[in-house]
Amino acid sequence: MKSSVSGCSVEEAMRLLGGRWRLLLVSYLLDGPKRFGELRKDVPGISQRMLTLDLRALEDAGLVRRTVFAEVPVKVEYQLTEDGLRMEPVVAVMKAFGLWLKSRA
Amino acid sequence: MKSSVSGCSVEEAMRLLGGRWRLLLVSYLLDGPKRFGELRKDVPGISQRMLTLDLRALEDAGLVRRTVFAEVPVKVEYQLTEDGLRMEPVVAVMKAFGLWLKSRA
Repeated sequence: MKSSVSGCSVEEAMRLLGGRWRLLLVSYLLDGPKRFGELRKDVPGISQRMLTLDLRALEDAGLVRRTVFAEVPVKVEYQLTEDGLRMEPVVAVMKAFGLWLKSRA
Repeated sequence: MKSSVSGCSVEEAMRLLGGRWRLLLVSYLLDGPKRFGELRKDVPGISQRMLTLDLRALEDAGLVRRTVFAEVPVKVEYQLTEDGLRMEPVVAVMKAFGLWLKSRA
């Protein structure tokens, strides 16, 4: 029987990363800092509102840093924090599983 | 720049596993076959309808097998298929990340 502690950890992780787009956004941020508009282009299916909310959630969790550059027009960049880089193995394993899913389609 | 192919794989995996409860259900099924009622007890937050839909989605993807035993009362068991066992590393990495999330809380 599974201890509630370990089950609970999966639940905790999925509460943060389980959304349709969050890990996908993280996978793009693993390539380096990105502007809002770049992320929208990377993930065409996401709405502007959802992208804002997802980035905010990752920011609130300390996994993404939002930097505003005092330029005209203002430039806002998103990048993974050191903690955010801990998601790299999560993205890697999800990518491998997704590749397998597609390979048998 | 990320190739659309690899980003797309993460998206493909998350489309199937990205729900709030699915990987959690899989984590319990990794312990062995479970009856519907057992899974409901393992995951108290899930509604009966959601549990049905999530199990159906995993079944449709060939990752879970549903077995009906001709007993009175009827007994229905869910277990991971051989393909379903491929989710073990996904659960493991998500559990590790969840543990880390909780450790810093």
